[in-house]
Amino acid sequence: MTEKPKKLSTESYKGVRDFYPADMAVQEYIFGVWKKTAESFGYEEYGASVLEPAELYRAKSGEEIVNEQTYTFIDRGKREVTLRPEMTPTVARMVAAKRREMGLPLRWYSIPNLFRYEQPQRGRLREHWQLNVDLFGVDSIDADVEIISIAYRIMKNFGAKDSDFVIKVSSRSWLNKWFDWLGLELGNEAESKRKKKLLFQLLDIKEKDPKRFAAGLKEVRADLTPENFSGKNIDPDSVEKNLNIDIKGMIRKLNNAGVKNVIVDLTGVARGFDYYTGMVFEIYDTNLENRRSLFGGGRYDDLTSLFGGDKIPAVGFGMGDVTIRDFLETHNLLNVSQAPSDCYVCVLSENEMQYASKIAEEIRAKGLRASIDLSYKKLGDQVSYANKHNIPFVVIVGANEVKSEKVTLKNMKIGEQKVMTLEEAIKTIQK
Amino acid sequence: MTEKPKKLSTESYKGVRDFYPADMAVQEYIFGVWKKTAESFGYEEYGASVLEPAELYRAKSGEEIVNEQTYTFIDRGKREVTLRPEMTPTVARMVAAKRREMGLPLRWYSIPNLFRYEQPQRGRLREHWQLNVDLFGVDSIDADVEIISIAYRIMKNFGAKDSDFVIKVSSRSWLNKWFDWLGLELGNEAESKRKKKLLFQLLDIKEKDPKRFAAGLKEVRADLTPENFSGKNIDPDSVEKNLNIDIKGMIRKLNNAGVKNVIVDLTGVARGFDYYTGMVFEIYDTNLENRRSLFGGGRYDDLTSLFGGDKIPAVGFGMGDVTIRDFLETHNLLNVSQAPSDCYVCVLSENEMQYASKIAEEIRAKGLRASIDLSYKKLGDQVSYANKHNIPFVVIVGANEVKSEKVTLKNMKIGEQKVMTLEEAIKTIQK
Repeated sequence: MTEKPKKLSTESYKGVRDFYPADMAVQEYIFGVWKKTAESFGYEEYGASVLEPAELYRAKSGEEIVNEQTYTFIDRGKREVTLRPEMTPTVARMVAAKRREMGLPLRWYSIPNLFRYEQPQRGRLREHWQLNVDLFGVDSIDADVEIISIAYRIMKNFGAKDSDFVIKVSSRSWLNKWFDWLGLELGNEAESKRKKKLLFQLLDIKEKDPKRFAAGLKEVRADLTPENFSGKNIDPDSVEKNLNIDIKGMIRKLNNAGVKNVIVDLTGVARGFDYYTGMVFEIYDTNLENRRSLFGGGRYDDLTSLFGGDKIPAVGFGMGDVTIRDFLETHNLLNVSQAPSDCYVCVLSENEMQYASKIAEEIRAKGLRASIDLSYKKLGDQVSYANKHNIPFVVIVGANEVKSEKVTLKNMKIGEQKVMTLEEAIKTIQK
Repeated sequence: MTEKPKKLSTESYKGVRDFYPADMAVQEYIFGVWKKTAESFGYEEYGASVLEPAELYRAKSGEEIVNEQTYTFIDRGKREVTLRPEMTPTVARMVAAKRREMGLPLRWYSIPNLFRYEQPQRGRLREHWQLNVDLFGVDSIDADVEIISIAYRIMKNFGAKDSDFVIKVSSRSWLNKWFDWLGLELGNEAESKRKKKLLFQLLDIKEKDPKRFAAGLKEVRADLTPENFSGKNIDPDSVEKNLNIDIKGMIRKLNNAGVKNVIVDLTGVARGFDYYTGMVFEIYDTNLENRRSLFGGGRYDDLTSLFGGDKIPAVGFGMGDVTIRDFLETHNLLNVSQAPSDCYVCVLSENEMQYASKIAEEIRAKGLRASIDLSYKKLGDQVSYANKHNIPFVVIVGANEVKSEKVTLKNMKIGEQKVMTLEEAIKTIQK
């Protein structure tokens, strides 16, 4: 370097997060529960790059969303590239590409990072991670039940009680027909489709933003009001019977599978994306001060057909890291204790380093974590580093230990220390 | 959707990879060995976004590299954003930001994805994942030894033998002084610095591309030839003594720590990045047909000072997923067996689904993976799905099993099936 560069900022890019070890431990804990639960249901992990051709999103989301709400840029090969805003188009693409050789059904999960171009605000950063769980190739209610059961089981595995959350279910196809049944008179077929799509988006903000909901309805038809869409105007039983959609059957099966905190809320679960075709669900926090949607999903049987070939029935959900972390903190369910190591090897002088390395390697060979102090500072300073970092055991190595081929083990919790063989020390640390 | 969209391509973006479950399992295996080894040495995981301000790279890499070799674009807030091409600037930024509150030393690791804008070729995709292991706050040889020991231990934990790879070490500061000692007459101070930087880059390609190496030397000084830089012209002992750099001491300590396959190769390890200040090392495959650098690292004591404040001594390495996967395949070390589930629950009719769900949930509660067949097809079809997916056990649930509150367990390997209690079945599967 011929000239001194100006001082660089230590800030991250706006709207994204740095994960220092304490935060990373929380992240890894959340990912761990996600992985373990999905795998316990026989789901296999897949992955893909965060970079996708922009056309993948234009097809279903439309120009406006891609241009204004995603990170899309032109590469030097003049290709339009998008940082993926959601995983569903990617997984549909991958399944469509290898449907023949893989054989259905497919049970897949992934934990991708997703990007949205928007002003950062609480719980809505520009980048977040999201568990995606999808079941391809089964079009029955049993598949819907399995997907909702996984979502339920994840909440339980995080330590949530049934009373901490409620699962609201609805049906996109039911709503579609209900709009007709209500006699909304939305115009010709094309016009009606466009307006129904708008209605789905509006229902998605019904609870979050009642004002914008009411205003939006006027755009659909001048005389529509929120009352037209209030639960009071719906008789699920009769409507359901008329429309021959077995929402109650699904609830019964969910109850049979042990999922009891589930309710039908036909206008309360619309989901933003317009690729859903059947069952949709959303899990709500029941905490009165935080009664909001945590995550959700639904059935989307048409998406793979965008890539040609037959339709593949699909049902799945996505669950974001930011929202669930918030939930776990609110409900006091986040107790990630973390020490960087199981034992800290203190070395009194350079003469003992060889013996210390050997000991540390033997401890590691038993599946334990061992870090070595490299400072040759006073023993007190070395022990206090271990203490500051919550490391439960200190192994002290000095000239006496080398001579006797033993170690001094200090239990940091009770403050006791003892000379013993390495084997004994390892057994004590393992407990 | 009012109009049918044109058929979308199922291809991923150019130069990046889709990870179907079989590939993802390999990826997870590699990441698992990385994580376990780094943690066994007391290293803590950290993370950050793939998006970084472009200025983070301009400072050390220069305009040209950022503009031509990275993905850099302008966001709608007119900020220049780069998809990180390496992790070291990020970790230096993070450490510099919180150096006061965290306390040194820090032992950190991460497994980020990195982007490079270049033509895809074998082993050099546009996106890859890379383990980064760094130790901050210790400037002694012991830290260098620890970092190289971790690299060595990872190779061993992958199943490599000492004879499969060799660790070459050199020293950037030694090389710097050696260039002077050789009397290269590189011009005034600024000119000399620029040319030394070029020499480091050239030494990096000495083995890979001897022609480009020779041509490059002419640009440094018209009469320079590869002979000037051949090992034969170097007497490490005398040079080392003269320059007072204890490379031999480091080798001795490595040997003491059990790392024997390490050699000094002063001109054979230059590393591309110019932020290294001391020890540099590279691990080479010893396979005659594939004798190339697998990965490497070194000491970089100046990087955190770019963010203001004192220098923090740092040493670390990076290890890419593509290269190591290649190595493992070449040496027959990759045997990732994968079944999506530990047992497959076959359900004979819808009447038994409730019982089947209950059983599956109890199996999962014991930490096992259980998937349920939702097809209600003939038993033979259900069993053959399990067979195709290498699932080792099948649990059959029909009317008899519901009545007797038992299950029929089929061991797919030996083909034997038996009626037993669920408890017995779980014990068998656990073995």
